Amino acid sequence: MESEPKDGDKYNRTETMTGRVTVVAVEEILGFPIRVLDKGFIRIVDYMGDDSAIVQAARVSYGKGTKTHSEDASLINYLIRNSHTSPFEMCEIKLHVKLPIFVARQWVRHRTASINEYSARYSILEREFYIPEVDTIAEQSPVNKQGRGDPVSDKIASDVRAIMISNANQAFNSYDSLLANGLTEGPGLSRELARIGLPLSTYTEWYWKIDLHNLLHFLRLRSDKHAQLEIQAYAHAISQIVERWVPLTYAAFLEYYSGGSHLSKTAVNVVSRMLRGERVVQSESGLSQREWRDVMETFKIGGD
Amino acid sequence: MESEPKDGDKYNRTETMTGRVTVVAVEEILGFPIRVLDKGFIRIVDYMGDDSAIVQAARVSYGKGTKTHSEDASLINYLIRNSHTSPFEMCEIKLHVKLPIFVARQWVRHRTASINEYSARYSILEREFYIPEVDTIAEQSPVNKQGRGDPVSDKIASDVRAIMISNANQAFNSYDSLLANGLTEGPGLSRELARIGLPLSTYTEWYWKIDLHNLLHFLRLRSDKHAQLEIQAYAHAISQIVERWVPLTYAAFLEYYSGGSHLSKTAVNVVSRMLRGERVVQSESGLSQREWRDVMETFKIGGD
Amino acid sequence: MESEPKDGDKYNRTETMTGRVTVVAVEEILGFPIRVLDKGFIRIVDYMGDDSAIVQAARVSYGKGTKTHSEDASLINYLIRNSHTSPFEMCEIKLHVKLPIFVARQWVRHRTASINEYSARYSILEREFYIPEVDTIAEQSPVNKQGRGDPVSDKIASDVRAIMISNANQAFNSYDSLLANGLTEGPGLSRELARIGLPLSTYTEWYWKIDLHNLLHFLRLRSDKHAQLEIQAYAHAISQIVERWVPLTYAAFLEYYSGGSHLSKTAVNVVSRMLRGERVVQSESGLSQREWRDVMETFKIGGD
Amino acid sequence: MESEPKDGDKYNRTETMTGRVTVVAVEEILGFPIRVLDKGFIRIVDYMGDDSAIVQAARVSYGKGTKTHSEDASLINYLIRNSHTSPFEMCEIKLHVKLPIFVARQWVRHRTASINEYSARYSILEREFYIPEVDTIAEQSPVNKQGRGDPVSDKIASDVRAIMISNANQAFNSYDSLLANGLTEGPGLSRELARIGLPLSTYTEWYWKIDLHNLLHFLRLRSDKHAQLEIQAYAHAISQIVERWVPLTYAAFLEYYSGGSHLSKTAVNVVSRMLRGERVVQSESGLSQREWRDVMETFKIGGD
Repeated sequence: MESEPKDGDKYNRTETMTGRVTVVAVEEILGFPIRVLDKGFIRIVDYMGDDSAIVQAARVSYGKGTKTHSEDASLINYLIRNSHTSPFEMCEIKLHVKLPIFVARQWVRHRTASINEYSARYSILEREFYIPEVDTIAEQSPVNKQGRGDPVSDKIASDVRAIMISNANQAFNSYDSLLANGLTEGPGLSRELARIGLPLSTYTEWYWKIDLHNLLHFLRLRSDKHAQLEIQAYAHAISQIVERWVPLTYAAFLEYYSGGSHLSKTAVNVVSRMLRGERVVQSESGLSQREWRDVMETFKIGGD
Repeated sequence: MESEPKDGDKYNRTETMTGRVTVVAVEEILGFPIRVLDKGFIRIVDYMGDDSAIVQAARVSYGKGTKTHSEDASLINYLIRNSHTSPFEMCEIKLHVKLPIFVARQWVRHRTASINEYSARYSILEREFYIPEVDTIAEQSPVNKQGRGDPVSDKIASDVRAIMISNANQAFNSYDSLLANGLTEGPGLSRELARIGLPLSTYTEWYWKIDLHNLLHFLRLRSDKHAQLEIQAYAHAISQIVERWVPLTYAAFLEYYSGGSHLSKTAVNVVSRMLRGERVVQSESGLSQREWRDVMETFKIGGD
Repeated sequence: MESEPKDGDKYNRTETMTGRVTVVAVEEILGFPIRVLDKGFIRIVDYMGDDSAIVQAARVSYGKGTKTHSEDASLINYLIRNSHTSPFEMCEIKLHVKLPIFVARQWVRHRTASINEYSARYSILEREFYIPEVDTIAEQSPVNKQGRGDPVSDKIASDVRAIMISNANQAFNSYDSLLANGLTEGPGLSRELARIGLPLSTYTEWYWKIDLHNLLHFLRLRSDKHAQLEIQAYAHAISQIVERWVPLTYAAFLEYYSGGSHLSKTAVNVVSRMLRGERVVQSESGLSQREWRDVMETFKIGGD
Repeated sequence: MESEPKDGDKYNRTETMTGRVTVVAVEEILGFPIRVLDKGFIRIVDYMGDDSAIVQAARVSYGKGTKTHSEDASLINYLIRNSHTSPFEMCEIKLHVKLPIFVARQWVRHRTASINEYSARYSILEREFYIPEVDTIAEQSPVNKQGRGDPVSDKIASDVRAIMISNANQAFNSYDSLLANGLTEGPGLSRELARIGLPLSTYTEWYWKIDLHNLLHFLRLRSDKHAQLEIQAYAHAISQIVERWVPLTYAAFLEYYSGGSHLSKTAVNVVSRMLRGERVVQSESGLSQREWRDVMETFKIGGD
């Protein structure tokens, strides 16, 4: 496993004619890796469909439709807004991803997708592990149980990196020893056993294929600020790909999903009273302090 | 809903350049309907991947691989034989299908697929219903609870068709009346209600997108002789498509799945004894009469 | 297929001891049919888990937790609010449902569920079909392409029912003729063929098993006012079941999902400006007329 | 995370009455851990259904059925033999599992299941890691690219264990340092970062819920001799549970799946010729050497 994609011959890819829909902005970057984290990448291996394929499928369901670009945009907005998600399943993308194992473990929780991962039972892993950049190293957050709080000083960050690097190298040294012929007279320890001491920061690779509906769901959860920073980095790279691939859908996604806000029944009532000029305070709003703060932040108003 | 695919303009499809893998034998028929039953069709709308994409994904998992055509064939055989199914998920196909509703009801039981169906809540259904050909009309089988037995005479088949045609026309006459402006001063009965009297033989249409692994499973179940004849017809048409699209995979599928046979533990034991020259009779074989008969038929030997 | 559940002996069910979690309010109605539409029903066959099972699973993920009822409620609210959906998959319910085929066709689009349906290839269907009540018969809506508009007069509703009844009876008469021994000297037409002329209003039955997360998604879509009235009736019956089964979850569902509202990025901005005392009109709001109207309705304010 | 299940209070579980089907042999072990590997376990948290529930669901589909135990067994055999898998989805089980992360990574590839895993972003991991027993430590197989070959000597096995233990302890030492308050003046490094250096042998825990059909598929793949030994250990423990829970189904599974054999079209032909007394040699059989050897082994005959 090298840091370049193994099938580098893709760079000399053959162009052929097709009757399928193609997307010029995707063809431009097809096969080329987008760098993520210190040694990872994402690259597009294949894709099916585009914004027009979504519109085409929706028209089968909802009757004959519109033809112009602005009508397409409007139909896609309508579909996203009303959770008519099935037409977005009609687009599919296949990515080649290189990522640390702890990120892979979060990623794989998205079950409606296909994966072929590099197998450390069959093959030997390269000495490649993730070490966070200085400016992403932070203390445990005292308020958010799952996240990072204040960044540490550069000095401490540097110490943390040193510990991590030394630790991972030590694990790979053991890995190499266990696999070496010298261990026994035979061929070394079985690969499936030798690798169990490697750290969760070790890089792996996989082919990942998913439809657009499920990909948007992935983006919503994994580009959220509560996701771990490292998987956010992959989500951001994928967002760029989606924007190239299906620009109308991506715009609707930003408008209605990632950029919008979901209000509870009680929050709707609170905002409704405020809009009619009533003065509402948290204590009698029916909202918890946390929910109240969220509502105030959403609408950028000073709460009580 | 006409009997021609609605997006007939596909016939004048635009050819563009792509860096993706293409399959010439699929490009040749891309967009063109293959006729199925009396008024149905299947046509390829889009596809992703080919035999080489399966090999490529398998190599990520199982290490660096082979390059020649015969090595590809051999790897694909190996994958099918050992139920390493995930590389086959790396290929995807999107079909436009026109089919009777009772066939659609069987089809939709394959859940790992995406569907956009023509909606009879939004749109009015054409007067199109399936009537079986004379030579496919048969009596209830007395032995197979779910299937057809002896064919009926041409005279009776003709009577059956007449009953079916008259019946379906009657239902569509009512449908038309209920939708007509004349019913009320207003716009006629809501479409979602008017359609509930239409027969299960009514044709519908959908876009259906599925990966190759799940498609092979569909073919195994639906081209089986126990499947209803009408869905078999669709499975046979899809088999032709799969043969064009991924010829190595299709050959392996015929060799190991649809053409092979699964033996129970007891049947293995029976055959093993026979191969060693022992004489085995059903009564002491441990197999039921039905299983015994199946084994004898599989190996084309006269049983006891 | 009778209108009573086939396994009526469930009414004389055996009570046994179990170490599993049980829900008294569910045990009370376990096995008894809740009537839906004119001849349908829903009854609980089995269930797994309760509100506490969700909390238990969430604690595994998010660390040791809370013990009191109010802390459980608060944790469940937190999970729903933040789309931490996996703990809700830890509860499962199995229902026996009798429903018209056109409803079954909408229902089955929820793919993450298990179904065993009565097979009309194996068995003969009873003469049971759905006929809408007078007060649910309505014209096609001129504004909502998929829905019902104004109700028709009682006189016309009565005419519609008469057409529907006559039509369905005619179809069942043909069905009976085709299946009759008299047709041929043999056992009548195969059941799988005879049934293709039956109407979409024919009742079928199935066992349906689904986890709570996917069930809530079903309820959100199918108890919505845009769903067809007939499937709404089933969704309402299931809501009652869910309220008995997992009352804390159901309350959170009402507060955050079905009772809440999702605002787009632009709508959030519009409301934000209004809350800060700014006067906003539709034409310069960035919202379409339809979205503007939706926002005004959500917050019960008179728009421009 | 201790080596005892966290909710140990389950041992003092409450027994309540239920109208649901119960399985005495499962109730006996409900909640109690079955030990697996050096520090792992599996325990049943909840279950739904039994053999009779499968029969009940099958009867809905295939018509009224049988009542006696031997008829139930016969129906279940029929369902398994003919791949009528949906009735097996009507049973569900929820397990609490403690397992090493490298096993969890293989396990999670079974996507049709629900998981709630202990989160190392929220909580601190105990110093618990898997170390293989002496007699399971083996060299890389020279023939099987993914597996173990000859065992190593006890002396070498002991050395391997020492390397693994020292290595894992070193990683946990670093983990502790990074989390310690001493690192900064603040609360130590964020947990989500500190854990990335831990080895793949670290134990995690999860709740895992799956239906019986998918569980049998899991057992077929993971109790196979090609699966890694460590996940086989879990599969064997689950097999014992399944045998208690649905004994008729488990017997059919052994007879038709795990104990049976799948022959290719060509292999069927070869065996058929042999059974008719023909002498067949590999070179003209159409089978590769490997397939030929497999067939000879299946039927325990000396090949050429």
